[in-house]
Amino acid sequence: MRTAVIRKEHFNAAHRLHNSSWSDEKNHQVFGKCNNPNFHGHNYELYVKLIGEPDRETGYVYDMKKLSDLIREEIIQKFDHKNFNRDVPEFQELNPTAENIAMVIWQKLRARIDLKYDLKITLYETERNIVEYPGA
Amino acid sequence: MRTAVIRKEHFNAAHRLHNSSWSDEKNHQVFGKCNNPNFHGHNYELYVKLIGEPDRETGYVYDMKKLSDLIREEIIQKFDHKNFNRDVPEFQELNPTAENIAMVIWQKLRARIDLKYDLKITLYETERNIVEYPGA
Amino acid sequence: MRTAVIRKEHFNAAHRLHNSSWSDEKNHQVFGKCNNPNFHGHNYELYVKLIGEPDRETGYVYDMKKLSDLIREEIIQKFDHKNFNRDVPEFQELNPTAENIAMVIWQKLRARIDLKYDLKITLYETERNIVEYPGA
Amino acid sequence: MRTAVIRKEHFNAAHRLHNSSWSDEKNHQVFGKCNNPNFHGHNYELYVKLIGEPDRETGYVYDMKKLSDLIREEIIQKFDHKNFNRDVPEFQELNPTAENIAMVIWQKLRARIDLKYDLKITLYETERNIVEYPGA
Amino acid sequence: MRTAVIRKEHFNAAHRLHNSSWSDEKNHQVFGKCNNPNFHGHNYELYVKLIGEPDRETGYVYDMKKLSDLIREEIIQKFDHKNFNRDVPEFQELNPTAENIAMVIWQKLRARIDLKYDLKITLYETERNIVEYPGA
Amino acid sequence: MRTAVIRKEHFNAAHRLHNSSWSDEKNHQVFGKCNNPNFHGHNYELYVKLIGEPDRETGYVYDMKKLSDLIREEIIQKFDHKNFNRDVPEFQELNPTAENIAMVIWQKLRARIDLKYDLKITLYETERNIVEYPGA
Repeated sequence: MRTAVIRKEHFNAAHRLHNSSWSDEKNHQVFGKCNNPNFHGHNYELYVKLIGEPDRETGYVYDMKKLSDLIREEIIQKFDHKNFNRDVPEFQELNPTAENIAMVIWQKLRARIDLKYDLKITLYETERNIVEYPGA
Repeated sequence: MRTAVIRKEHFNAAHRLHNSSWSDEKNHQVFGKCNNPNFHGHNYELYVKLIGEPDRETGYVYDMKKLSDLIREEIIQKFDHKNFNRDVPEFQELNPTAENIAMVIWQKLRARIDLKYDLKITLYETERNIVEYPGA
Repeated sequence: MRTAVIRKEHFNAAHRLHNSSWSDEKNHQVFGKCNNPNFHGHNYELYVKLIGEPDRETGYVYDMKKLSDLIREEIIQKFDHKNFNRDVPEFQELNPTAENIAMVIWQKLRARIDLKYDLKITLYETERNIVEYPGA
Repeated sequence: MRTAVIRKEHFNAAHRLHNSSWSDEKNHQVFGKCNNPNFHGHNYELYVKLIGEPDRETGYVYDMKKLSDLIREEIIQKFDHKNFNRDVPEFQELNPTAENIAMVIWQKLRARIDLKYDLKITLYETERNIVEYPGA
Repeated sequence: MRTAVIRKEHFNAAHRLHNSSWSDEKNHQVFGKCNNPNFHGHNYELYVKLIGEPDRETGYVYDMKKLSDLIREEIIQKFDHKNFNRDVPEFQELNPTAENIAMVIWQKLRARIDLKYDLKITLYETERNIVEYPGA
Repeated sequence: MRTAVIRKEHFNAAHRLHNSSWSDEKNHQVFGKCNNPNFHGHNYELYVKLIGEPDRETGYVYDMKKLSDLIREEIIQKFDHKNFNRDVPEFQELNPTAENIAMVIWQKLRARIDLKYDLKITLYETERNIVEYPGA
């Protein structure tokens, strides 16, 4: 019986929404205060869901300690207390919307997690703005 | 890749559960204290989920500011600080259970949101009583 | 060493803010949408704090099971799924603001709790509107 | 239109992760501090989801009072303030991981809920470790 | 009887901890990852507490709608989606720690609220890092 | 101006309420299901508050990273995934009520924190049962 396990982690980061192929005026018009050239920031809450079969010997779908360590290594150390636009290579050309951040998190974790597990990402940018990235 | 964005809003309202084709006795038997003729009320927490493709230029599935404005215009202004049974036309004949409130919210938003988006509603009547309306 | 114990309980109720010695116009001007004659409602979250000395034999300041039972008997059974303006005697003349509801809760519990305990009430009307009534 | 209703309940219990067919050394290596022979414990938050058609006369998918009573009878009375390894028959041979606890909850409730309803279990072992058991 | 009312608001901002009279090395040593020259950010949760006497005619200590409007005008419009170090005049010379942000919020609101009210500020920088500024 | 900083940490533990100088019958009568000889457990949420003067150079009342490290060293490593009655020396003779656990936490941290800071402990045993230990 396929069962899901979910691990919650968090990171704090700065970002700015901006499309470099647009004029400043259009960027301001589309992204409003999220376009502030001096950045703003969020406490991001990240939920990583793995769906698979529980192991008969352990009763685990996945060892949550190992999942937490993996998320810290791949995501938290690279995003926490960083500026997405300036410090994170994946967002040099990509706008760091919650949608795109969730997609990049999925890609980075997908490369490290056995394909027998489905992987889904939920990211809270604020308590009121949430994104779910279900992967392929 | 289809991705979901979710916006949380809230409203406070009064209601009473009652089926006008039943006797008072049967209403009391079925709905218990929720049948109080003088009403009671809740802080409703509303999650509106849209599922679609992120736009390549903005990185948005949907502009969350516009989604928030739309929910406020269609739902919050009509339900907040209101009595469902007395003040809201849709509930003149329809019992304002959380199930039915979620369905009416879905119908009101579905009429305003492009059909390329899937629309799903989650409504918390209390922290412990929750309804999900997935739409068609 | 004086130590505090706090018990959280909740109730759902309808109310309307209204001063019967004022004109309808003034009531609407002062209380806005909270003056809706058809009522609105809330999920109230109630925190009851008792401050006293831990008992040497039990290690309890107060038995939390007994405190919960007392709150249910004195407050929850009288307020839950009720309309403050119509169903609760204390609010026939008193405006059911969160401030006044907290004061009435304090009075009702003060009469039942030994005076060796200090008693303080915190009431969440919503997640964003909170009242603290510290008593005498 | 199929609609979901979700009821949240909670219980507090002790447990220890242990595979009796393994050596103590291997148990400690795999389960780490969760293998403490003296047990540790959690405040479990349980969400029970039923998916079905709202009844035309009541507007309910399921009476939430009856669902709460059923969960209390089948789950809370049997698990709350208990030690999974010592007090709960289902875990005499089964490791009380969150995955297995969710599965046992599903089995116990499935036997009591009409098959016209889909049944899904979500269990929070902590705020950061969560399991979803979707059933058959 | 003096009673407290508390209003919760929020804002999202970027900041960097830095003492311009220190070397870069000392700044990094003291402030660690919070010293990132490219900034990071937070979802700040702000609780503003006013303590006073409830008005006999309204039952209000303070009109919470007016308190919310005042906080939005004095604080949210000036801090939300801003960079404390670059966009907010008060922090050109002052390090934007949570302690100092809470103090500045207190000063800005104290100038607008009648002295018959005590004013206290609680600021959540994250769910786990909290500051209380009790004022004079 | 004295300002408070608060750090939140958590631990999961098992315990049993029991007074060894009483009969089993009296223990069961007083402590009810909390007296289960096989133990039960909780996710404890701990808030440690230090009150002091912000440092002029850093803007910190206390470095929250150092406070977190201190709490982990003195409290989390000793209590997390432990059984209070069996594994923690302070509770060999002392009943591990939330009141007593908060007092022991205060004593352990008081010995490590400069007396120029006031120290206060808040401990959530569950979301609904909370203790505040204000110290001397």
